[in-house]
Amino acid sequence: MKADEEIMDLKINRESTIPIYLQISKGIRDLILNGLLPAGYRLPPERKLAEELQVNRSTVLNAYRELKADGLVDSHVGRGTEVSQGEFIDDGDNDSPQVAEGPVIHPMPWEQLFCEATLRMQDTTVRDLLRMAGREDMILFAAGVTVPGIDSLDALERIQADVLKSHGHRTVQHQPTEGFYPLRESISQLMKKRGITASAEDTMVLSGSQQGLDLIARAFLDPGDIVFVEEPTFFSAIHIFKAAGARIIGIPIDKDGMRTDVLDMMLKRFKPKIIYTIPDFQNPSGAVMSLERRKELLSLAHRNQIIILEDDPYGLLRYEGRPLPALKALDGYGNVLYLSTFSKLLFPGFRVGWVSAPREVLHRLTIMKQTADLHTSSLPQLIFDHFLRENLLDEHLEKANKENCRRRDMLLAELRDANLDAMSWNEPQGGLYLWCRLPDGMLQTRLLARAVENGVSFVPGNTFYSVNPTGNYIRLNFTYPNPSQIREGVRRFAEAYHDTQREQKHYSGAAQISLGPIL
Amino acid sequence: MKADEEIMDLKINRESTIPIYLQISKGIRDLILNGLLPAGYRLPPERKLAEELQVNRSTVLNAYRELKADGLVDSHVGRGTEVSQGEFIDDGDNDSPQVAEGPVIHPMPWEQLFCEATLRMQDTTVRDLLRMAGREDMILFAAGVTVPGIDSLDALERIQADVLKSHGHRTVQHQPTEGFYPLRESISQLMKKRGITASAEDTMVLSGSQQGLDLIARAFLDPGDIVFVEEPTFFSAIHIFKAAGARIIGIPIDKDGMRTDVLDMMLKRFKPKIIYTIPDFQNPSGAVMSLERRKELLSLAHRNQIIILEDDPYGLLRYEGRPLPALKALDGYGNVLYLSTFSKLLFPGFRVGWVSAPREVLHRLTIMKQTADLHTSSLPQLIFDHFLRENLLDEHLEKANKENCRRRDMLLAELRDANLDAMSWNEPQGGLYLWCRLPDGMLQTRLLARAVENGVSFVPGNTFYSVNPTGNYIRLNFTYPNPSQIREGVRRFAEAYHDTQREQKHYSGAAQISLGPIL
Repeated sequence: MKADEEIMDLKINRESTIPIYLQISKGIRDLILNGLLPAGYRLPPERKLAEELQVNRSTVLNAYRELKADGLVDSHVGRGTEVSQGEFIDDGDNDSPQVAEGPVIHPMPWEQLFCEATLRMQDTTVRDLLRMAGREDMILFAAGVTVPGIDSLDALERIQADVLKSHGHRTVQHQPTEGFYPLRESISQLMKKRGITASAEDTMVLSGSQQGLDLIARAFLDPGDIVFVEEPTFFSAIHIFKAAGARIIGIPIDKDGMRTDVLDMMLKRFKPKIIYTIPDFQNPSGAVMSLERRKELLSLAHRNQIIILEDDPYGLLRYEGRPLPALKALDGYGNVLYLSTFSKLLFPGFRVGWVSAPREVLHRLTIMKQTADLHTSSLPQLIFDHFLRENLLDEHLEKANKENCRRRDMLLAELRDANLDAMSWNEPQGGLYLWCRLPDGMLQTRLLARAVENGVSFVPGNTFYSVNPTGNYIRLNFTYPNPSQIREGVRRFAEAYHDTQREQKHYSGAAQISLGPIL
Repeated sequence: MKADEEIMDLKINRESTIPIYLQISKGIRDLILNGLLPAGYRLPPERKLAEELQVNRSTVLNAYRELKADGLVDSHVGRGTEVSQGEFIDDGDNDSPQVAEGPVIHPMPWEQLFCEATLRMQDTTVRDLLRMAGREDMILFAAGVTVPGIDSLDALERIQADVLKSHGHRTVQHQPTEGFYPLRESISQLMKKRGITASAEDTMVLSGSQQGLDLIARAFLDPGDIVFVEEPTFFSAIHIFKAAGARIIGIPIDKDGMRTDVLDMMLKRFKPKIIYTIPDFQNPSGAVMSLERRKELLSLAHRNQIIILEDDPYGLLRYEGRPLPALKALDGYGNVLYLSTFSKLLFPGFRVGWVSAPREVLHRLTIMKQTADLHTSSLPQLIFDHFLRENLLDEHLEKANKENCRRRDMLLAELRDANLDAMSWNEPQGGLYLWCRLPDGMLQTRLLARAVENGVSFVPGNTFYSVNPTGNYIRLNFTYPNPSQIREGVRRFAEAYHDTQREQKHYSGAAQISLGPIL
């Protein structure tokens, strides 16, 4: 059976927030489920439908993939894409459309039931990275955690027993939404290291700082609101703000952090609700915002009544040089909402972070957190509190930072020796990442595919941009792989790098097409 | 200085989702912060402003309270409410409005920055209950957890050591968003007890089933969508659906659960997206949906293409009688999203629950969970997995259910002996709650205030209704207090009950005013 132009007349709304490929798949799904496209019906070839609808071929390809994943169509070499033989609608053994008689089993059209905000959440980069982490053989320059080998497991063993002994049944019972109070006190002490004076009452425990980003986005952002972010920046933040329907505007960074001169100009054009920043060892660039820029940012935010969302997961991971106070520490106006987490310091799987904010904000966030998960898991909270009270975190950080620093130097040395001509990188004084510039035109996804084949992973730089990337980068983590993995990882990476260079010379031109799907 | 009618001309939008009291407080706040109401300015008396704006006096009272909490106004006996002397805007030592010169410190107007969805989240009943739980002397008939005295702490001590031994660094590292895979397998086994066949792949670990409600509401509900709930029902579910902007329609229940005959009729008028139900030992009523009604509900949902959200925290807490299969077990159509949790069985503070759902739904929920908290805390997941694999949950449940049953019988006996004329209650075969009917006209909040004075708490029944309650109820938990607390708790409660009866006879008439604020 051949495609019939009339039946396949699909309506596309280019203004909608629903991605076009989902509009196409939904339209075809409706036709199939309503019996208008019978089993065996051959869908138009991708290219043809793309032309007709004036969309990219990859959009149609994605739409067909969705339908295939739902079992509604099959594709066969030589025959193209056909409506499956499965019984979506029990219309007897006749494959032509007809009015069904008696009770029919009509599967729930789940994809059509999701709300708009859900459909804005598309990217699964982080989840894919977590999955990759499950493969034993892979060397993870893609990781985002600190040295795993020295996580003080012995101390953990003793402390989890102590917690149970000293708190008994309280260990397993509910905690207040704001968090275990002694932990809030301990965190208040910890923040002093970042120059911050904030009491336990100003601080709420979170299920990771990820939760803080989500709650703050939900608390403040209406669709259409504007958020300024550093460009490049943490990909999850981009996704969260996008999911809230915000418009994201990137402010460029240099080695001194966010370009406040550009910020000043952009504020003439846009009225952002939030400026999101990672002032210390920025992810992914490793940049540290200078003291002068910190003051300019605070002043601009105050004068324009903009919320500063300071994300500070790396502030305590400095290996050399003089530490700078957090923005929150310098904030005389009360514009800063401060987020941090234990996840980059110790026990990332425990998912404990915190927010420090003005009381009225904390009050709202508490109501929202109660709705989101009632409270953060009790046992990890109690364990972290004991770690802090026994000054074990300090001990751990001293050890970990020394090792982090050693691994950074090692990765730098290995990269220098690997003959990666035309690739360059920064040398950060802390944090977890090198930000490496690839030669213009080298495809990140092609390089990643080669690297993964070789057993080494990294994060493509494009992931960290909300719009078109302004440069060709990749992010390499130096803290998760151990020294011998770093050596072997660079060997595998260099091989992939050189292969990619050779291949691209060979196939130049055709290579620019399929960036999207692989990411 | 006296109130000036012209300056205080506030605009109220009765169509807005922003509560009127917040509109009023925001209006006045703007006037103060813009210097139009100088320090010392006397706001109109509450009654007068209420008349002018044609709102309830309590609305104005709440608006003034907000302003007071923000330090913008003070109230003085005899002088009413005045704009505070604090420097909201640094206009020198002159208290009349003027154009500020040079840099001013203008505090962030946080309450005006929250988005609409946030302002829909008002109720903090659960959080207040969690706070109350922190008071050592209080006997908690308000609790929502099972016997705390026998939570297998010895087993926990051994198992947390085992977990660390067998998983090492994995214990503290990231887990996939979907959850620790072996735990998903164990949960799949556990669900068989409820008649459910669902593989590990059909199941995702959650940070409590609360998170499941939140994710599902966010995934499916656009503002204006309709959700059917049992009336009365779990208050957090009401709040979550309301926060998503949904319209909530209550379907009455009787001892056989949701009235499917009424449901059938209501479906003629409304097109709900979700029907939310707790079929087994419903919270708060204790009702168990009959097998016939389960089949009717499934059939109605299928015929009308409605999602059934089955919340099953109590299904394994049956003390007598024959268990019924979960809706999910009977669902031949694939309409049911199934939520459950360990929180009502063991270690409520660990916050581990799960959802079982069709793959395409799970896929979306996974993306949303990744955004919300990346994954559920690792250590509690690993601990629960070991508990399940060693059949320790079964052992625990056998013990716990015997004790739960004993406490239920004890509370029933104590209530019978306490001479609570005109109060009646059900006798549930499982779950955690008695649902007690108060005499018409007895004020729940007055009774609660008396009870809390006496050192005993319960949950007022009105909390469980999305609209006007159809009866005068309270919810008593019988599993959290131990036997001697049950005895003493009923004594304290009965005293409060009899006091309230006497007081209300005395002050009848004036008592109907202030239900809202106390809740």
